Amino acid sequence: MENEEAIQKALALANAAEIVMLGTNGDNGYPHIKAMLKMENEGLKTIWFSTNTSSKRIAQLKRDPKTCVYFVDFENRMGLMLIGEVEILQDANARERLWREGYERYYPQGIDDPDYSVLRFTAEWGNYYHALQNVTFSL
Amino acid sequence: MENEEAIQKALALANAAEIVMLGTNGDNGYPHIKAMLKMENEGLKTIWFSTNTSSKRIAQLKRDPKTCVYFVDFENRMGLMLIGEVEILQDANARERLWREGYERYYPQGIDDPDYSVLRFTAEWGNYYHALQNVTFSL
Repeated sequence: MENEEAIQKALALANAAEIVMLGTNGDNGYPHIKAMLKMENEGLKTIWFSTNTSSKRIAQLKRDPKTCVYFVDFENRMGLMLIGEVEILQDANARERLWREGYERYYPQGIDDPDYSVLRFTAEWGNYYHALQNVTFSL
Repeated sequence: MENEEAIQKALALANAAEIVMLGTNGDNGYPHIKAMLKMENEGLKTIWFSTNTSSKRIAQLKRDPKTCVYFVDFENRMGLMLIGEVEILQDANARERLWREGYERYYPQGIDDPDYSVLRFTAEWGNYYHALQNVTFSL
């Protein structure tokens, strides 16, 4: 599998994904993983999420923005790991970009709820795995 | 959701899982994630995997055994994170325990192939998530 083929397949996996795994540096030197709704992705470089400002995840990300985002297709045994950093955004543009119908369920004060945060992940490199082959590429 | 109910639901998720995500501490302080076949589990306390001794994963685990194992049910929006450490085993008992038909594909020298390693993960605590509730418990 050549780099270009791997990146094309990785992009198809990322575009199709609804739920991805976010890896963070948790307490006492242990990695943590949590499934998150992938809200938007711009190719493989930028992935957008939203979450509660009061969550443990945000506390970890404020302390250490180093993260990975993992996409998996169980049936086809494909996996994609992107390595990069997360920024926590609360500006009006970011809030509007990710706000969806029904979000009042999670953020009762609406789009300006201080408990509503946007996460923007920017990838530096990736690794795509399929059929016993894996390819690492820069982004 | 009470602790006991969370542990029962977590156990059902762990027992049913075929593929889980292993979180490790990768290079330069970044967390890494990889999907792995769950070979066996003893309740929530011990999870067994196998992998190639020459893999990047093993190099990371030798440097730092701190890990998490993540189980996810996308459809039902359930997630289980177990936090603990991984031991790398190469003794005959461990090799026999996890050897499966067809493994010569991965380990051409058979059950004694030096590239065949067994991973035993032991959990210290867990966090189970379902329907906007999450419960943390010791193990």
